[in-house]
Amino acid sequence: MKGERTQNTQKDLCSVLEPDSIAVVGASRDPTKIGHTILKNLMISGYAGKLYAVNPHANEVLGIKSYKSVLDIKEDIDCAIIAIPAQFANNVLRECGKRGIKGAIVISGGFKEVGEDALEKELIDISKKYGISVIGPNCLGIVNVHKHIDSIFLPVYKLKRPQLGSISFVTQSGAVGSTILDLIGESNIGISKFISYGNAAVVDESSLLEYLRNDPDTKVIVMYIEGVKDGRRFFEELRKTTAVKPVVVLKAGKSALSAIAAKSHTGTLAGDYKIFSSMLKQAGAVEAENLEELFNLSKIFLQPLPKGDRVLVITNGGGDGVLAVDAIERYGLRLAQVSAHMKNKLKRILPKHVVVGNPFDLTGDADSGRYRIALQEAVKEDGVDAIIIITLFQTAGLGSEVVHEVINTDNNTDKTVVSVAMGGEYTQLQLGIIESYGVPAYESPDAAVRSLSKALWYYRKKLQNPLRPREIEAGVLPIVRNVPIKTGTRKGSK
Amino acid sequence: MKGERTQNTQKDLCSVLEPDSIAVVGASRDPTKIGHTILKNLMISGYAGKLYAVNPHANEVLGIKSYKSVLDIKEDIDCAIIAIPAQFANNVLRECGKRGIKGAIVISGGFKEVGEDALEKELIDISKKYGISVIGPNCLGIVNVHKHIDSIFLPVYKLKRPQLGSISFVTQSGAVGSTILDLIGESNIGISKFISYGNAAVVDESSLLEYLRNDPDTKVIVMYIEGVKDGRRFFEELRKTTAVKPVVVLKAGKSALSAIAAKSHTGTLAGDYKIFSSMLKQAGAVEAENLEELFNLSKIFLQPLPKGDRVLVITNGGGDGVLAVDAIERYGLRLAQVSAHMKNKLKRILPKHVVVGNPFDLTGDADSGRYRIALQEAVKEDGVDAIIIITLFQTAGLGSEVVHEVINTDNNTDKTVVSVAMGGEYTQLQLGIIESYGVPAYESPDAAVRSLSKALWYYRKKLQNPLRPREIEAGVLPIVRNVPIKTGTRKGSK
Repeated sequence: MKGERTQNTQKDLCSVLEPDSIAVVGASRDPTKIGHTILKNLMISGYAGKLYAVNPHANEVLGIKSYKSVLDIKEDIDCAIIAIPAQFANNVLRECGKRGIKGAIVISGGFKEVGEDALEKELIDISKKYGISVIGPNCLGIVNVHKHIDSIFLPVYKLKRPQLGSISFVTQSGAVGSTILDLIGESNIGISKFISYGNAAVVDESSLLEYLRNDPDTKVIVMYIEGVKDGRRFFEELRKTTAVKPVVVLKAGKSALSAIAAKSHTGTLAGDYKIFSSMLKQAGAVEAENLEELFNLSKIFLQPLPKGDRVLVITNGGGDGVLAVDAIERYGLRLAQVSAHMKNKLKRILPKHVVVGNPFDLTGDADSGRYRIALQEAVKEDGVDAIIIITLFQTAGLGSEVVHEVINTDNNTDKTVVSVAMGGEYTQLQLGIIESYGVPAYESPDAAVRSLSKALWYYRKKLQNPLRPREIEAGVLPIVRNVPIKTGTRKGSK
Repeated sequence: MKGERTQNTQKDLCSVLEPDSIAVVGASRDPTKIGHTILKNLMISGYAGKLYAVNPHANEVLGIKSYKSVLDIKEDIDCAIIAIPAQFANNVLRECGKRGIKGAIVISGGFKEVGEDALEKELIDISKKYGISVIGPNCLGIVNVHKHIDSIFLPVYKLKRPQLGSISFVTQSGAVGSTILDLIGESNIGISKFISYGNAAVVDESSLLEYLRNDPDTKVIVMYIEGVKDGRRFFEELRKTTAVKPVVVLKAGKSALSAIAAKSHTGTLAGDYKIFSSMLKQAGAVEAENLEELFNLSKIFLQPLPKGDRVLVITNGGGDGVLAVDAIERYGLRLAQVSAHMKNKLKRILPKHVVVGNPFDLTGDADSGRYRIALQEAVKEDGVDAIIIITLFQTAGLGSEVVHEVINTDNNTDKTVVSVAMGGEYTQLQLGIIESYGVPAYESPDAAVRSLSKALWYYRKKLQNPLRPREIEAGVLPIVRNVPIKTGTRKGSK
C-alpha cells in the first residue's frame, strides 16, 4: 500500500493545501447551499489566488463568472473544492484529472461512512489514475491562514476563524474539527493550517504528518484521530516528526463500542487502543486524554520547552498556591528551591507579609510592581526550569498592567512561563491578552502543571529520539540539565 | 473540644449567616478601604435588613449615620462585620459581646496565618465568653443571595455576583473562593450561600456543614478545604449530611509540601491526604480532583440523580459521539440499549442517514425538530438512566430554539439530562441559556460523563447510608433499579 501512494508527496500536497488557484465546484447562487458558503468564505477571507466558480446552471455566482465544468477553464488550477452530492463527485474528479488539476477537496459525504464502499473505491482509483491528492471525502476541508484559504462551509457568526499562528490542526472528524476551530478562533492563539480529512480515502494522517513536518509555518502539530490507515507508516512519520516538532494526539474510538461508532462516522477501523497508545509513546507523540487537554497541550508548546522538572509558583492567592503544589506533586514535577540570594534580596524589597518562597505568595494586595520584582528575579534563578504565574484579577489592585508589563514574552528567558487565571468577564479579557503575548493561560493550576509535565516528557523524549537533527548534538538546541530521567533512559539522554 | 463548641448551634449560626441587622465596623469614607466597599456592596446588593456604619472618625458614611462604637447603637444587632486591622479587631469583638451581638465576621487578616497565634487565641476566648459565632478571621466573609447580603470586599466589575439558586459554597481560601464566586456569577447557575471561613478560629467546616444540612435553601453543598479542625466531628457531620443532600469536596494541601503552603495560608494543618480521601468516600462525599471538576460536579446535582449506569448519547456530531462512548467506558458506565420499539418508530420518522442507535447520531444537518423527536422518545425508554445531549451549534441549522424547545427542564422525566456544547461566542451564549433552564452544560463529553459517573456513585452511596431519612424506605424517594454495585455492596443496596 505504501508503494502505491506516490501521489502523496510533499510537492503534491502543496497543490491541495497551498493552492494558488481554486475552483469551487457546486458554487451555488442559493445561500443555503454549502457550495455558496464555501465560495463566499474564500472571498471574504481575502484569498489572494485565482478563484473560479463551477456551476452548470448559472452564468455568474457571487459576482464572478461561472463555468459549466472545470474542463472549460483555460487557466491552470491547483485545487478543486468539490461540494456536490456524492453520486456526482467522482465524475467531477475525473474531469479534474483530465484537466491536470493535482489537488482536490471532496467535501461531500455519502461514501464509505454510509456503506458506499464502491463509490469510495472509485474515487481512490480516479485519484491514482490522474495523480490527484484528494482530501476527504466527508470532510470540512481546510483553512490555511497564511494564504487566506477557508473552505469551511459553516457560517462565520457561528464558527469563528482563527488568527495567524504556528499550530496546525489535523482532524478526522468534521464535528470535532469545527469545535476546535471555533474555540481557537475565539482565543488569541493563532493557527497555521487546519485540515479536516474525513474518510482519508487518499491523503491520510501519515501524508499530512509528513507534509506538516516539512512545513516551516507549522511549529506544533495537533491531531484528532479515530483510526489510522497504515500503522507502520504512521509510526515512522510520527517518529521523524517528533524529532523536530511536537505532535499532540487525541485518539478517539478507544473501546470496542466506540470503535463501532467511529466506523459509522468516518468508515474507520479504530484498532486496539492500548497498542495505539504505546505506539504514540514510543514515537514521542504527546497523547491528550480529552478535548480540554488537547487545547491545553497545544498552547504549552508555544513556550520554550521546560529543560527540567523544577517549577516556581508565583501567586497572589494562597489557596491557588496550595493547589499548584498539589498538582506539581501529582504530575511528578518538583518545587524549585529559591536561592538564598533571591530570598535575601527580595525580603528587603518586598513587604513583610509577602512569602518569598515557593509558592512565592505575593498575597492579595499585590500589584503589578510586586509581580515585576518577583518575575525579574525568578527568571535569573538557575534552579528554576518553569514558572507558573497565577494572577487573581478579582482583587482590587491588579489589572491589565500586570499582563502588558510583566506576563509577556519579553522576559528574556528560555524558561517555560505559563499563566493561570480563573474567573468571569474581567478575567477572561485578561486571559485573551495574555495569550496574545504567546503565554499560555490556564483555567486552573492543575491544568497548567499537567501541561508542563507533558511538555517536559516530550523534551526528554525528543533528546532520546535517534532521528533528531544534528543541531542538538552541536549544542545549538538546548540540552537538558542535571535532571535524571526516571524510566527508559538511554545513552546521551542525561 | 466538641463540648466547648456550644456557640455553634444552628440557631447561633443564623445570626451570622442570615442576619436581620448588620453593623459594618471600619466603614470608611475612603473608597480604597475594604470597610467602604463592604458597606457599599451591602447597599447596592439591596440588603433588606437594618444596616449600621461604625467608624469613630466619621459622622456619616455613604449617606448613613456612623457610630463611634457598636456600644453606641441602641437597636439590636445580629451581626458585626469587622474590617479593621488585626490588632484592633479583638477589642471590637469584645464590645460586640458586651452589646449582645451573637454573630461576627472578622474579615481582617494578621492572625494565626502569620504566626500571631496569641491574637487568634484571644479572639477564640472572647467568642467563647460571649457566645459569639465568629466567621474568620482572614476571610472574604459571606454572600447570602436570598437575603441580599454581600460582605465581599472585591469590586463587582471584577468579581461578578451570582444569581439566586440552590448550591452553597464553603471555602477556606478567600482567593479560591473569589474565583468560584466570579465563575458562578458569570454563569447562569445560581447559589444560595457562599461562605469564606478563613482561619476557622470559631465556626469551622463541621459547624457549617451542620448548618447547611438543615438549610432548606441549600440543595447542594460544595466545599474547598485545606484542613479540618476536628476530623471525627467532620466525618459525623458529613455522613449525616450526605444522607440528605450531596456534598462535593475539593481537598487542597494533599502532599507534605503543599501542607506547608496551606499552613502559611490559613494556619491549617492539612493532615494525611489518603486518610482524608478515604474518609470522604466512607462518608459519602463526592471528591473533586481539581477546580474544574468542582464546578462540573456542583451542577450535575441540579439534575435528578441517575438511578443506574445506562447512558444514551444524542448528538449531531459523529466525532463527539465517539468521544462520549470512550468516556462512558473510561468512567465505568454503560451504553444504554435503545429498544426495538424506539428504533422502528424513529427510523420511519427520521431521515435515512440518521443513525438511530447509541450514540444516536442525528448528523450534521440536524435541526431542533430532529432533537425534539429523539428526546421525546428517549425519555420514555425504560433502559435509559441518563441522557447526554450534544449540540454542535457551529452547524448552520441549529440555534437557540433547540435550547428553548428541547433542552429544558420541562422534559417530564426523572432521568438525568445533561448537555455538551463546545465553542466560541455563539455557543457560549447557548450554554448560558441551557444552564438557566437548570440543565448542566459541559465543555466536553468527557467532563459530562465523568460528572454523571460521580453522581451515580453518590446515589448508590446515599442508599447505603444508614442515616438516610425514612422517605427512602417508604418509596417516596426513588429506589435504585436492577444495577449491581461493583464494590462495597451492603445489604439493601441492590
